[in-house]
Amino acid sequence: MDFNLTEDQRAFQDTARGFAREKLLPHAGRWDEERHFPAAALREAAALGFAGIYVDEAHGGTGLTRLDAALIFEELAYADPSTAAFLTIHNMVAGMVARFGNDEQRARFLPKILTAEHFVSYCLTEPGSGSDAAALATRAEPVGNAQYKVNGTKAFISGGGISDLYVTMLRTGDDSPRGISCVVIEKDTPGLAFGKPERKLGWNSQPTSLVTFADCLVPVANRLGDEGEGFRFAMMGLDGGRINIAACSLGGAQACLDAALAYVKERRAFGRKLADFQALQFKLADMATELDAARLMVHRAAASLDAGALDAIKHCAMAKRYATDVCFRICDEALQLHGGYGYIKDYQIERYLRDLRVHRILEGTNEIMRVIIARKLLEAA
Amino acid sequence: MDFNLTEDQRAFQDTARGFAREKLLPHAGRWDEERHFPAAALREAAALGFAGIYVDEAHGGTGLTRLDAALIFEELAYADPSTAAFLTIHNMVAGMVARFGNDEQRARFLPKILTAEHFVSYCLTEPGSGSDAAALATRAEPVGNAQYKVNGTKAFISGGGISDLYVTMLRTGDDSPRGISCVVIEKDTPGLAFGKPERKLGWNSQPTSLVTFADCLVPVANRLGDEGEGFRFAMMGLDGGRINIAACSLGGAQACLDAALAYVKERRAFGRKLADFQALQFKLADMATELDAARLMVHRAAASLDAGALDAIKHCAMAKRYATDVCFRICDEALQLHGGYGYIKDYQIERYLRDLRVHRILEGTNEIMRVIIARKLLEAA
Amino acid sequence: MDFNLTEDQRAFQDTARGFAREKLLPHAGRWDEERHFPAAALREAAALGFAGIYVDEAHGGTGLTRLDAALIFEELAYADPSTAAFLTIHNMVAGMVARFGNDEQRARFLPKILTAEHFVSYCLTEPGSGSDAAALATRAEPVGNAQYKVNGTKAFISGGGISDLYVTMLRTGDDSPRGISCVVIEKDTPGLAFGKPERKLGWNSQPTSLVTFADCLVPVANRLGDEGEGFRFAMMGLDGGRINIAACSLGGAQACLDAALAYVKERRAFGRKLADFQALQFKLADMATELDAARLMVHRAAASLDAGALDAIKHCAMAKRYATDVCFRICDEALQLHGGYGYIKDYQIERYLRDLRVHRILEGTNEIMRVIIARKLLEAA
Amino acid sequence: MDFNLTEDQRAFQDTARGFAREKLLPHAGRWDEERHFPAAALREAAALGFAGIYVDEAHGGTGLTRLDAALIFEELAYADPSTAAFLTIHNMVAGMVARFGNDEQRARFLPKILTAEHFVSYCLTEPGSGSDAAALATRAEPVGNAQYKVNGTKAFISGGGISDLYVTMLRTGDDSPRGISCVVIEKDTPGLAFGKPERKLGWNSQPTSLVTFADCLVPVANRLGDEGEGFRFAMMGLDGGRINIAACSLGGAQACLDAALAYVKERRAFGRKLADFQALQFKLADMATELDAARLMVHRAAASLDAGALDAIKHCAMAKRYATDVCFRICDEALQLHGGYGYIKDYQIERYLRDLRVHRILEGTNEIMRVIIARKLLEAA
Repeated sequence: MDFNLTEDQRAFQDTARGFAREKLLPHAGRWDEERHFPAAALREAAALGFAGIYVDEAHGGTGLTRLDAALIFEELAYADPSTAAFLTIHNMVAGMVARFGNDEQRARFLPKILTAEHFVSYCLTEPGSGSDAAALATRAEPVGNAQYKVNGTKAFISGGGISDLYVTMLRTGDDSPRGISCVVIEKDTPGLAFGKPERKLGWNSQPTSLVTFADCLVPVANRLGDEGEGFRFAMMGLDGGRINIAACSLGGAQACLDAALAYVKERRAFGRKLADFQALQFKLADMATELDAARLMVHRAAASLDAGALDAIKHCAMAKRYATDVCFRICDEALQLHGGYGYIKDYQIERYLRDLRVHRILEGTNEIMRVIIARKLLEAA
Repeated sequence: MDFNLTEDQRAFQDTARGFAREKLLPHAGRWDEERHFPAAALREAAALGFAGIYVDEAHGGTGLTRLDAALIFEELAYADPSTAAFLTIHNMVAGMVARFGNDEQRARFLPKILTAEHFVSYCLTEPGSGSDAAALATRAEPVGNAQYKVNGTKAFISGGGISDLYVTMLRTGDDSPRGISCVVIEKDTPGLAFGKPERKLGWNSQPTSLVTFADCLVPVANRLGDEGEGFRFAMMGLDGGRINIAACSLGGAQACLDAALAYVKERRAFGRKLADFQALQFKLADMATELDAARLMVHRAAASLDAGALDAIKHCAMAKRYATDVCFRICDEALQLHGGYGYIKDYQIERYLRDLRVHRILEGTNEIMRVIIARKLLEAA
Repeated sequence: MDFNLTEDQRAFQDTARGFAREKLLPHAGRWDEERHFPAAALREAAALGFAGIYVDEAHGGTGLTRLDAALIFEELAYADPSTAAFLTIHNMVAGMVARFGNDEQRARFLPKILTAEHFVSYCLTEPGSGSDAAALATRAEPVGNAQYKVNGTKAFISGGGISDLYVTMLRTGDDSPRGISCVVIEKDTPGLAFGKPERKLGWNSQPTSLVTFADCLVPVANRLGDEGEGFRFAMMGLDGGRINIAACSLGGAQACLDAALAYVKERRAFGRKLADFQALQFKLADMATELDAARLMVHRAAASLDAGALDAIKHCAMAKRYATDVCFRICDEALQLHGGYGYIKDYQIERYLRDLRVHRILEGTNEIMRVIIARKLLEAA
Repeated sequence: MDFNLTEDQRAFQDTARGFAREKLLPHAGRWDEERHFPAAALREAAALGFAGIYVDEAHGGTGLTRLDAALIFEELAYADPSTAAFLTIHNMVAGMVARFGNDEQRARFLPKILTAEHFVSYCLTEPGSGSDAAALATRAEPVGNAQYKVNGTKAFISGGGISDLYVTMLRTGDDSPRGISCVVIEKDTPGLAFGKPERKLGWNSQPTSLVTFADCLVPVANRLGDEGEGFRFAMMGLDGGRINIAACSLGGAQACLDAALAYVKERRAFGRKLADFQALQFKLADMATELDAARLMVHRAAASLDAGALDAIKHCAMAKRYATDVCFRICDEALQLHGGYGYIKDYQIERYLRDLRVHRILEGTNEIMRVIIARKLLEAA
């Protein structure tokens, strides 16, 4: 066992850290307040290779591992979990195009994805099927040999209305998971429409909306992989997505813990620094301990996924469940340690709290994680 | 022992419930979003007697007990914790004027307070003294026999800039708690100024700001009680304030629990209603159990305060600590049970979560509550 | 609402407290160590009226309410939860005989029960049906008009082998709850046998064993109530049993909290009393707060049951779940506050921890409590 | 990073697992019940190299790392945490003799320690100084050049009365930590006496007692290292001791989790297997997740200690705090999942619960761990 980062990993981490603190942190509060999508900053991130992290170098990407990516996303989320999380989705989709697409599709789509000239959305969830991905009802009917006619509605789509490409899970066959295919739908497709942006507790630097398809004609040539492979792609994407969302939680929680440590060393009450009160020390100790445990879980899951380990699915579900719960609680306790100032937007803790709240819901709720973990445990027992 | 409400109490409760659901609930989301102070609705509440709950009938008030008030505030907070909490402060100040003021002061101030033509703020906390009330530095120097010259800054003042009267704790004497007096400062006093409204996680229907005094001349006739009595008044106010903030937490949590129960009975996943999933049932059971425990703690504390019981301070601190922690957690879990919809403003759960978050900080943080409880325990042991 | 005890209640409480500290506390550690059943002490308790608390005065009992009983059992459990809990079962059975028996049965059984000359056991649980009472398989076949032939096995029977009377739930009819009857089986009945006493984590002052019936002939005249009423009796008994077991948890937890308070005021570390360490103060504050909440839940449930309130079943389930969980945790934390001494039998904390552990399992596990609470919530929503 | 064991590590693990299940597990319940010290089994463990794990091969030991040791101790504790924990102390002392002793001392003491012909105890704690090691009062006065006269009392000494060697921290100098030295005291030293074995909640396979020194004359040649080095040795020992006690908690918790998984797959209620109840599945998922997190923390701490990392002290404190708390809770929940059977000694879950309880207290209480963690955090912030 080895718990140390490689020199390369430290270098990625430093790059991400520097970028995040210079280009994201000074603006994140305003982007949240104004619900501003920071396209320019995301393109700067892309220029550092952060839009094609899983795309191999032969196809123009950065060619890194899940573990490398977790380190990068944690650093970005230290400044802005919402923007970092948007970028994880962009990367996931980029990785799907690179891995499951053919040469023609890679050539057509990847270059603009890798520079973030094009933003991409991932369309899986539907209004009636949150955690129950296999129940999806959006249909693609063949129209001649070369086209699908797509009808249906996707919900909670990050980047909805702003993205240029919508990588969409559609039902091309029967009602089973094997009836699902994965198709790239371009923004200017007639019949494609967007709900108004959802007003949300957080994640305000990325728009979220309904995406509706009304008789959209989409080239069959836009389908990634074969018919019926969509659900498998989606499930593979989810494991990585869980690690990424968990990594974004780590970054947010670390930022809040650091802020709390700084605050208690400055702020005085009853004639002493807050840092001298033992009950607050114990709170900080527990926050740091659980954050370390969460980080180890995330890194272990990433390593398992990179290695194709048998336990990878379980490890990803555990890491997502544990890290997103623990990190939200750390933000909440950091807020409490700030007293009234924690409740004020200027101190930013409340922004992390709001952003991290959705991580316990996304990419499979933490309840679904427990279903997955329990199934694996009982199978193995 | 008797755990039942009287018929009168059920009547107050019904009145408050009806008012809250008709006059507050339909607008609370918008008031939050727009940071709108609902003066008109508060005046309608006053017309029902809810601006002078602790003021006895002889002085034009409603003359109810702390326990009656807790029932009313819970119902109002079921619709809008922020607006209900503002009203609790208004009532606390009204009660202080009625109880500690003289006839002239009561005649001069109370009528417009009781109709809410005048709103009132309570100025205790300072930028450097959150939980440490005795450290306050705002000074009142005598100018002749009839005036004080006031200098200093108060922080986190609910109603700052909107209220007509600021009941302010000032240092008129030495550095001890006995050096503090309580003075009513009117809005048009030269030298009185307000910071810009704080941008907060919640409590958006009430403005919060710094209140600064620069050589404000204030009549000695505006002092409630004698010089040196201010700290005692403040401490007495806090016990009641703790019950009220806890009661507002109960209302918010009950609203979220009710919403969650309704949601799980409607929403389906994996072919079944959410209500049929045992793990969610257990979650709901624990939410309801802890909410009941919190409500009992609040009612017991109110009854102790009404009775002037020896343990009243401890009971109030316990109720505030327990209810505000538990009720926030209930909102958080109700949000989780709503999945992605919980994160969307339309479903309102997130508003309660944001509003209730500050209850763990206000009126003495929950850490201060533990200090108080422990002191009482160790004295008695 | 009224949270005060009556003078009578204070008197019962004082009597129970005095008895417990004089007659139980000095011996409880030894009884636990030696697995000694304290028949003599229980008969002394009976002499104070504590063996027929629910039996009305007309039938020789004490004629108190559920709430009165909860106060008494808490005091007894303050000294010895195991012995107190045994007595709650004795009282439950006494109450069943008094309430569901006819005059002949009362005359035959009650006098010796009320003096505790006879001890009584309650036989519901079976090896294959812990929480699932309706699944019981012990059968009573009619033999002529006047006798039943009983076959089957009961598990975890408190008092098994020591009690003189076994009030037993038997299947006299179909497989539904309506096929169950309640019969008193006397110790000398041929075919009645007992497993060897279970070796348990705690509850060592009361023997627990299998009770087996092999062709036991039992007079029909020993049946309480009509055929088919047994399940209803059992369910009614359980509500009261839940309050009692919860009350026993309160007593144990209060004893541990008091011991911890005394210990931290004596013991020194790093040059200060433990009581001066803020983190320990906070722990004590939370223990006391949750214990108060638990006690209110228990008293409210008892009052609901006494009043025949619609919510009584839910209130009893909530009180049992909450109090038994919270009180175990309080014992655990009191042990921790004692450091190494908490682990040593001489300090007795570990005895309370062991005894209270089973309260989370008995009288319906706390998981079953959640099932009941959730069902009531969802019905009402 | 690498989360996989080497082949060698898997081999140690297998050896330890096989030994534990064959030689410890079948007897552990009886050893607990009878308070039997299993000298023979410990000598069999020694024959496998498990009595000199940290002693390098040149000195006859096994020469393994802290991480290797953690793997071994987890496996032994899977069968019997009490016996495994005793062996960790034996190994710690063996390591101290090997590392801090001179050639003569190694030659004199090590051979019989490595075969466990001699058992060894570690004497640091005193009756008045549990967690406050620096306060120790046992004194060694020089008598001529070659002897110390030792007076004082040590408390909670594992192996007291049975061990042949007592490696004892003594005050040879001033009241500071630098006044402490480390001396080997042999069992037959006149004036050495033992209290009667403590009666404890658990850890019953190892005797614990007071050890008193009354004018014991001890050769200066038995001092390990220089005068004044004792406290430093003790602190170094503690870091490793914390990992070991945490590793023993992992083993106990894994045994309980495995038992719970097996039980829920067998046991039926309400017509279904317990494994089919979702709320129980969620419980199992959380148990497994937290156990994995605890194990990662322990392995990371061991790796840090092996590498002499700057953060090693913090990592050890975090691992000890987290793992011992989490693992106790897992045992507690496994007990609950067994219902009434969990409370019965035959099912053994309760033995693990009792044994693991003391791990939260030993080697520095978990409160002391928080003090250490907070100090490191605040220094670094």
